Amino acid sequence: METAVAPVQWVGALDRGHLKMLDQRLLPAEEHWHEMSTYAEVADGIRDMVIRGAPAIGIAAAYGVALAARVLAVEAERDEIEEKLEDVYDHLSKTRPTAVNLFWAIERMKRTVAESSELDAPALVARLFEEAEAIFTEDRDNNLRMGRLGADLLPEGAKVLTHCNTGGLATGGYGTALGIIRAAHAAGKLEHVWVDETRPYLQGARLTAWECMKDEIPCTLITDSMAAHFMKEGEVDAVIVGTDRVVANGDIANKIGTYGLAVLCKHHGIPFYVAAPVSTIDFEAQSGDEIPIEQRSAREVTHIKEQAIAPEGVQVAHPAFDVTPNTLVTAIITEEGVVEAPYRPNLAKLRES
Amino acid sequence: METAVAPVQWVGALDRGHLKMLDQRLLPAEEHWHEMSTYAEVADGIRDMVIRGAPAIGIAAAYGVALAARVLAVEAERDEIEEKLEDVYDHLSKTRPTAVNLFWAIERMKRTVAESSELDAPALVARLFEEAEAIFTEDRDNNLRMGRLGADLLPEGAKVLTHCNTGGLATGGYGTALGIIRAAHAAGKLEHVWVDETRPYLQGARLTAWECMKDEIPCTLITDSMAAHFMKEGEVDAVIVGTDRVVANGDIANKIGTYGLAVLCKHHGIPFYVAAPVSTIDFEAQSGDEIPIEQRSAREVTHIKEQAIAPEGVQVAHPAFDVTPNTLVTAIITEEGVVEAPYRPNLAKLRES
Repeated sequence: METAVAPVQWVGALDRGHLKMLDQRLLPAEEHWHEMSTYAEVADGIRDMVIRGAPAIGIAAAYGVALAARVLAVEAERDEIEEKLEDVYDHLSKTRPTAVNLFWAIERMKRTVAESSELDAPALVARLFEEAEAIFTEDRDNNLRMGRLGADLLPEGAKVLTHCNTGGLATGGYGTALGIIRAAHAAGKLEHVWVDETRPYLQGARLTAWECMKDEIPCTLITDSMAAHFMKEGEVDAVIVGTDRVVANGDIANKIGTYGLAVLCKHHGIPFYVAAPVSTIDFEAQSGDEIPIEQRSAREVTHIKEQAIAPEGVQVAHPAFDVTPNTLVTAIITEEGVVEAPYRPNLAKLRES
Repeated sequence: METAVAPVQWVGALDRGHLKMLDQRLLPAEEHWHEMSTYAEVADGIRDMVIRGAPAIGIAAAYGVALAARVLAVEAERDEIEEKLEDVYDHLSKTRPTAVNLFWAIERMKRTVAESSELDAPALVARLFEEAEAIFTEDRDNNLRMGRLGADLLPEGAKVLTHCNTGGLATGGYGTALGIIRAAHAAGKLEHVWVDETRPYLQGARLTAWECMKDEIPCTLITDSMAAHFMKEGEVDAVIVGTDRVVANGDIANKIGTYGLAVLCKHHGIPFYVAAPVSTIDFEAQSGDEIPIEQRSAREVTHIKEQAIAPEGVQVAHPAFDVTPNTLVTAIITEEGVVEAPYRPNLAKLRES
């Protein structure tokens, strides 16, 4: 596997090592890693958005539970540790109340404790670090599988455009849509990636461009408004994006700007691919109409950090996501396989498998 | 006519008044007007980009010539003024070497001097101020005509989207595409205008939003990447843009991002209008392929003023314009009439008239 930056990394031996966390708020100006040896530090890091991206948050929380157990094991016996971890789960759960992967990872650690009643304190601590590492590596393995499946769809010398950040920084170090681009690069198939800056929060300019440069994936930064021009010039062979939610009929919700790219792809005859771990498929919602669109603050549009770029008091709209209908999606790439239309029956097969 | 901010305005009597010029580099943070009583000050203002927009520059240069004559008339006779004005034309011409309207305005002032040989010095000065004012008012009258013709095309309660700044700030105080929006508002037909921020240089966020708020035209600022979403939601009845050049077959060049909007309009069945004074039609170029695309600096993409928003050294593409093919243009609105397809013969009729 190609080198990639994991935003959460374990350093050293389990009994005296620490977790390091890359501060994404400071990127790309500064690459600052926080060293964390207690669950409280990890919880602060998640709450204060040192890291973002649901999979990355889940991994960090799992290590947080293991770190808590390590501290407790200095003085406490096994049963006492199990009891005192309840407060730790609670504390970690409250850091980012809407992050599904956070609860999922904490539940998994809790189950691991329950299923290890035969272990003494030091062995339990070791088992929890093992489980956190498993969560980390499973995420990366799923991304790698998705990467290989997606890369197979691309032509040799592919010029690919992507939106937002779906890379190592949002996951266990590989990425979903950017993981596919990474895999294509590793396979020698990628000529070049166009990185949309992704206004208003600039995840493309700040994070994706940084990741690509770090891993020597050839990239060119453009404003979102330039994508159509380069499509017309024949400079884009495929668009690959991530998704926050796929619903039963194959409609997808993703960062604002995604839907416009899908329309532009259709007009230019360019394939539009969506990278989606199976965990992001919501089989309950029947169509994109059921996906609520989060409205975010005007300030993210009117300011770049402290710099105002618009008149004070201007009215602003800021939908953070848009919905792309299944008719514009060429394929949905999951770790279990590539799904094409008709999406409703074909996605349902993933649920059954 | 509705109130609108003209970026160049004459204040006071001709014998002791002055020109004031709105510093667009400081907008929207600060509304600072420079007072100018000499042609050298006007030349500095144009060169240093206190104002932008070809029509606005032409108007300022014309007043510059009149101001120069006023100073010369204090000591010189008529013939001596005519002779000394040659240096003034030369000085003003060198401020913005590519601005077509600048040369056109200076030529017109020069011809006015030549055609006024019967006038003494004070009368010549008065005649020159009169001509500068004529250039100013003709620009505004053409914009007003374009505005009325364009507003007639819009439905009642129109929700219009525009890109870049084509308003009073770029012209004699009314505007081309924004002039049409202004006219629709004055006619009570406009519900609302969506202002695209227009990355990278943010003319929409900085200038168009400011103009709309100043004139109480209801507006909402969005990032360029949000346009498609609001089209899908049925919130856009028409897109109106300006143009830097229309060629013989009706292809148009305009600020980067325009082409993408035209494609999105086609997909959603939304009319895409181009506001173009007859002076912007280039009858020599046969198609958009002949329009060179200006490449501008990476820094305008990677920085907002002094604030870096992307990794240092990232590769950037920055085409400042794109070309929209005539097939995506619903109509070209000129001061002489609304032109529809087939564009080649229909535009040619304007040349003959």
